[in-house]
Amino acid sequence: MSLTNECEFPVPGQANDLVAAALEQTNESDVTAAVHDIARRSKVAGRVLATATRGTKDAALAILADALVAHGGRILAANAVDIDRERAGGMSESTLDRLALTTQRIEAIADALRQVAALPDPVGEVIRGSRLPNGLTLRQVRVPMGVVGMIYEARPNVTVDAAGLALKSGNSVILRGGSAAAESNKVIVNVLRDALVEAGLPADLVQSVDEYGRPGAVALMGARGLVDLLVPRGGAGLIQTVVREAKVPVIETGVGNCHVYVDSAANLDWAHDIVLNAKVQRPSVCNAAETLLVHRDVAAQFLPRVFETLREEKVTIHGDAGAKAAIPAGLSFESATDEDWAKEYHGLDLAVRIVDSIDQAIDHIRAWTSGHTEAIVTNDVNAADKFVAELDSACVIVNASTRFTDGGEFGLGAEIGISTQKLHARGPMGLGELTTSKWVVFGQGQIRQ
Amino acid sequence: MSLTNECEFPVPGQANDLVAAALEQTNESDVTAAVHDIARRSKVAGRVLATATRGTKDAALAILADALVAHGGRILAANAVDIDRERAGGMSESTLDRLALTTQRIEAIADALRQVAALPDPVGEVIRGSRLPNGLTLRQVRVPMGVVGMIYEARPNVTVDAAGLALKSGNSVILRGGSAAAESNKVIVNVLRDALVEAGLPADLVQSVDEYGRPGAVALMGARGLVDLLVPRGGAGLIQTVVREAKVPVIETGVGNCHVYVDSAANLDWAHDIVLNAKVQRPSVCNAAETLLVHRDVAAQFLPRVFETLREEKVTIHGDAGAKAAIPAGLSFESATDEDWAKEYHGLDLAVRIVDSIDQAIDHIRAWTSGHTEAIVTNDVNAADKFVAELDSACVIVNASTRFTDGGEFGLGAEIGISTQKLHARGPMGLGELTTSKWVVFGQGQIRQ
Repeated sequence: MSLTNECEFPVPGQANDLVAAALEQTNESDVTAAVHDIARRSKVAGRVLATATRGTKDAALAILADALVAHGGRILAANAVDIDRERAGGMSESTLDRLALTTQRIEAIADALRQVAALPDPVGEVIRGSRLPNGLTLRQVRVPMGVVGMIYEARPNVTVDAAGLALKSGNSVILRGGSAAAESNKVIVNVLRDALVEAGLPADLVQSVDEYGRPGAVALMGARGLVDLLVPRGGAGLIQTVVREAKVPVIETGVGNCHVYVDSAANLDWAHDIVLNAKVQRPSVCNAAETLLVHRDVAAQFLPRVFETLREEKVTIHGDAGAKAAIPAGLSFESATDEDWAKEYHGLDLAVRIVDSIDQAIDHIRAWTSGHTEAIVTNDVNAADKFVAELDSACVIVNASTRFTDGGEFGLGAEIGISTQKLHARGPMGLGELTTSKWVVFGQGQIRQ
Repeated sequence: MSLTNECEFPVPGQANDLVAAALEQTNESDVTAAVHDIARRSKVAGRVLATATRGTKDAALAILADALVAHGGRILAANAVDIDRERAGGMSESTLDRLALTTQRIEAIADALRQVAALPDPVGEVIRGSRLPNGLTLRQVRVPMGVVGMIYEARPNVTVDAAGLALKSGNSVILRGGSAAAESNKVIVNVLRDALVEAGLPADLVQSVDEYGRPGAVALMGARGLVDLLVPRGGAGLIQTVVREAKVPVIETGVGNCHVYVDSAANLDWAHDIVLNAKVQRPSVCNAAETLLVHRDVAAQFLPRVFETLREEKVTIHGDAGAKAAIPAGLSFESATDEDWAKEYHGLDLAVRIVDSIDQAIDHIRAWTSGHTEAIVTNDVNAADKFVAELDSACVIVNASTRFTDGGEFGLGAEIGISTQKLHARGPMGLGELTTSKWVVFGQGQIRQ
């Protein structure tokens, strides 16, 4: 299992559940009080961690990893309960596969914790510093955020990843997992809490609000002043609900309506391989391409060739009239509507549009993008510069696949998610993005004139 | 006039007006549509600026500065209308003084724009970069936020400052000023817009929603996806309303319940001067001290001396029993309540508490601080380290006045405000904090394996 947990397609149900809970505006004062109490305990526990050394944190991560393996039997038993319930409830086999744990998967989850331990500690880094004219010594130092909340969907490995990344960056974490993984997560959280105590750290560094159901998630989103950062991970519905309803600071992650534009000056061999890679290598993730824009001058030469390969890969094309003209027999085709330009398919579907110019390509992308990743294929340096300068997305790529927008690929180490907002973090988020900074000033009695 | 516009005490009325408007939940669909249209025009105009060179931006700032001076007569006439109306409405003379413009003040405001022109351009800075193992070239580049909204109170110079800082950092700006300065702001915005056109830039880089009144401010706060960043500037009421009601990304600024702790190992000469400076040098600003904590071991020696000076400065003490015991004749004293520990006085009032230990001081600060600035006076390096490590505020100062938390003092150049939140910016915010970043990747046909 990779350290990089790529954003994945949504599990039906949870997002709508959250919307419903938020809209109910239930006067769940008991739940709110309980969740706020959890957040206060989280803050107190976090203070111990904020000043812990890297050695302490890495040793704890190793103990957590060992504990998960040691208690693998309990975790698998709980996971079997989740799987049985969800299979009976009609969950698809592919989603069940994401939910399912095995001894091997638990080993991999534990290994991911050990890899987090091997990453540099972001806390304590001096970002800027200077000696001021009046003799004051000024440093801007990286410090933990404090209490990090995480609302996510089915995969139980996210429970462990979130705890590990929070711990390494000096934060306490409050988890709200998907109901589909409720039993698995419950046991995993208990194993982690016991292991924290074994490591000499407060158990309350890792807490869950799962037992409070949907009102618990709403209370977590509303815990202003108690939760320093909330990161939603999952499908677009979940993320949008959290972004809209939360009263605490949120980082919006992972919604990727990514584009590939094949310019008139493109190397069409590169274009073919990039389109194929961006669409089919892992279609369920957020950095997969959803729309292909092709310059009219190369459409007649390029489209038949790429369509041939996409047919072999069983991709369905949602295209305009120009695309339709090039569709070979046996390739599924539907006429594209505005909905197609807006959609993140999460599957083997590709919207295709012919454009008259790079400006039209840029206008299309501006109109429809989620601001994640856009790629241009071109040999024209001015076209590349224009595309990079004029598009305002988290990542703009020249002559490579959109699939490279990834913390692991970028060399950031573990990835919390991919931010599509502009505040605080943009693009792949590593451990550093789970920290904030503090200004530290040392003087010798200076006062301001 | 300094480039640094320090946060100041609130103008009564506006914050409550905003609350009322937000709570009304009026179905002001016409206003919302109009404000959203303004935001869309702002985004389009901003695209021109995002790729403008520093030369273009600095030249435009000079033209704006000249235009303000050239149209000084119109601005003064409008300001006189504001002053007359507010004086008739009972505004205090000190607040009227902040609202009032003179030829000299207009010159100073214009000079501030010229000083912004002299600052380095944050846009285009490469924050990080590397060549990846697969040959991809990776750069994280600073780019403008896009559309910046600003909601602020009475002082008309903020209108110009906000426009200048936004322009320099490549952003378009949408302004919502206080109703007390409505006429002044209207003329200033028109002068700036005309000057932008003269500079060859779109007028819509600077727009105002003042004509839409309170519902316009609410619409601006709700313009999700259209406003990239909203910065409230003013008193606590205004800021909290914006933070609570806004659906767009907000940076919380400027609420400062700052503490000075005089340790048992303090140099009491330094402590005396620091307390005096932090409290009385400019009591209306956010980095002024509101609470003095004194270690019991030095209270008997320190308090009579500092109280003597504070009496001369006509400060009122709100203290505990220990403080009361040291109050000299002629120094105003009130017994402190929890309200005093929580309060930002914005005036010549100081809460005073005797503590038994540095731990008690830290606990007090944690319980009551707004997270702005805390100072310790001590010669004990371990006490200093503990105070710095355990307090989680934007700025922690050893042996100097709290008044140093300031963009100008920190050498950041112009200051947008002082962030008391943890996301994106913390402490004094310079031009860089009005930018975000974009990842730019160049390849040679790479695809992901």
